[in-house]
Amino acid sequence: MSKEVHVAVAGSTGAVGEEMLRVLEKRNFPVGQLTLLASSRSVGKKQIFRGQEYTVQELGHDSFEGVDIALFSAGGSITKIYAPSAVKAGAVVVDNSSAYRMDPQTPLVIPEINAGDIAAHKGIIANPNCSTIIMLMAVYPIHQLNPVKSIIVSTYQAASGAGAAAMRELEDQARDVLDQKKIEPNIFPWQIAFNAFSHNSAMNQENGYNEEELKMVNETRKILHLDQIQVSPTCIRIGTFRAHAESIHLELTNPLAELDGYRKALSEFPGVTVIDDRATNRFPMPTESSGQDDVFVGRLRPGLDQSHSLELFCCGDQILKGAALNAVQIAEQLLD
Amino acid sequence: MSKEVHVAVAGSTGAVGEEMLRVLEKRNFPVGQLTLLASSRSVGKKQIFRGQEYTVQELGHDSFEGVDIALFSAGGSITKIYAPSAVKAGAVVVDNSSAYRMDPQTPLVIPEINAGDIAAHKGIIANPNCSTIIMLMAVYPIHQLNPVKSIIVSTYQAASGAGAAAMRELEDQARDVLDQKKIEPNIFPWQIAFNAFSHNSAMNQENGYNEEELKMVNETRKILHLDQIQVSPTCIRIGTFRAHAESIHLELTNPLAELDGYRKALSEFPGVTVIDDRATNRFPMPTESSGQDDVFVGRLRPGLDQSHSLELFCCGDQILKGAALNAVQIAEQLLD
Repeated sequence: MSKEVHVAVAGSTGAVGEEMLRVLEKRNFPVGQLTLLASSRSVGKKQIFRGQEYTVQELGHDSFEGVDIALFSAGGSITKIYAPSAVKAGAVVVDNSSAYRMDPQTPLVIPEINAGDIAAHKGIIANPNCSTIIMLMAVYPIHQLNPVKSIIVSTYQAASGAGAAAMRELEDQARDVLDQKKIEPNIFPWQIAFNAFSHNSAMNQENGYNEEELKMVNETRKILHLDQIQVSPTCIRIGTFRAHAESIHLELTNPLAELDGYRKALSEFPGVTVIDDRATNRFPMPTESSGQDDVFVGRLRPGLDQSHSLELFCCGDQILKGAALNAVQIAEQLLD
Repeated sequence: MSKEVHVAVAGSTGAVGEEMLRVLEKRNFPVGQLTLLASSRSVGKKQIFRGQEYTVQELGHDSFEGVDIALFSAGGSITKIYAPSAVKAGAVVVDNSSAYRMDPQTPLVIPEINAGDIAAHKGIIANPNCSTIIMLMAVYPIHQLNPVKSIIVSTYQAASGAGAAAMRELEDQARDVLDQKKIEPNIFPWQIAFNAFSHNSAMNQENGYNEEELKMVNETRKILHLDQIQVSPTCIRIGTFRAHAESIHLELTNPLAELDGYRKALSEFPGVTVIDDRATNRFPMPTESSGQDDVFVGRLRPGLDQSHSLELFCCGDQILKGAALNAVQIAEQLLD
């Protein structure tokens, strides 16, 4: 790929699309030409990139002529319609939706973990689900030292996963609760302010797991190339804005070694910051993770009465490493 | 004990103490005489019980003459000082603090589970920690059908566990965050509004578990009379007001049976309401549990790829079943 590339962002006006522009700029991505695409509703909107104003165009089958890399953050059904046109026009698509994640032809990539999978792409590379990315950034450095057999994880997920409107709903609703006004949930099915509820993705009526949880199971296996790894997730939304937290219990293959070795592996892993201070009770928190590129990991401790288990708590910005940043990092791999 | 009893409430002006008065009234507890006790700071305050005004007196060693039942919710160090005086004066103490919970002489009781332990009391009966009560109300009905070997639990704990001032801090801080004002945590070490953080109880520097977590481990063993049961807790505070939620993974002794049997056992268990509607995605939530006596249990599902594990999610009012209600229920057992 040439040094200066033509980048298209499909869904540029959404929470993730906007963050993609900021990440491209911050990381000095060699954007030669930039095409902003969205649904007809957003056509004509102006967005700023490197101080220059760009006008949003309507996403269509003919939007991708000359485009080298198309970053999609437009939802699964839109991706299914337009990503093939982008590929046909010669672009490589990095898609943030779930549309192609489990397609055997499509690499599913967290660059720090399985960048090598990108080479096999057939035009589309999928960005994993936010909860999966944040969990695996915390788990993979441990896994390299002591292979993980089983992950039991409970999430504390922010409103941002449901988009910018959901973040506004949290804000507006919190005001209404404080003012003792009547609440009417709109984006979310239940009150999100000062509450916690089972993740609002579609529920598999047979097995009782929601889609968010099944993504964590299936995507983990694909990214780690480990069909036998066992993942037991419970996905819960809480009233936070943009960083997901996760409580993780790991069953390891070998007896647990000294924690310092695991802490060292985590702190040396790119994209991870260890926050694990028992003396001051300071551990990863959504407020501190918000706006940060790194996934924060801490509360490392051996499972009680078990020689093969490890507990930890992690936190990551859902819009950044959970979506926009990871997608741009995949795109960076295409430049090499 | 006679039909009409003299009840003292030590710590009557706190969040739990106030709720104890409401619970005594609501449950028609046969209060003949009522003595309200608190620290010197609250002396002279008026509190209403059954429409009658009572004046708060200073808690002292001579406060318990003629008292039959003394409900303590005054913190561990205060209990240690004054509970022995109450016992000496002939009262039976039901204590909500952690002071005597692990004392081998002191029964630790959730009446629906181990009311039989009360008979062995030597003057003091301990009320378990809120997170333990709420977890065991959800776990015990399962345990009766299929003995639990291991519990892996992550909590979503409300501000109320740290008292009325902590609930006000959440409210005030949420306003400040929405108004983009500077936050200064006071009761909690970190921002509680729109955040999640590792529980603010003292951290065991050796093993990395905080006191709240160790309570869940040790109290569970004592209440269930099961030294070998394994509990792996992660206790997290979130910005909710007064109901704790818990995500629970159980490893059972025998292969999992049909879920309907477990649901039936839960729904028939006193003090438990099953909310488990996959079709409408409705499961236990803090907003719905607040102000309710019952612990809500749902999201029952088999562990993926495991034949012996069960996942569930529960929610309970921290001030009611987690504290005041359970204490009054213990006191009711003393009337028989």
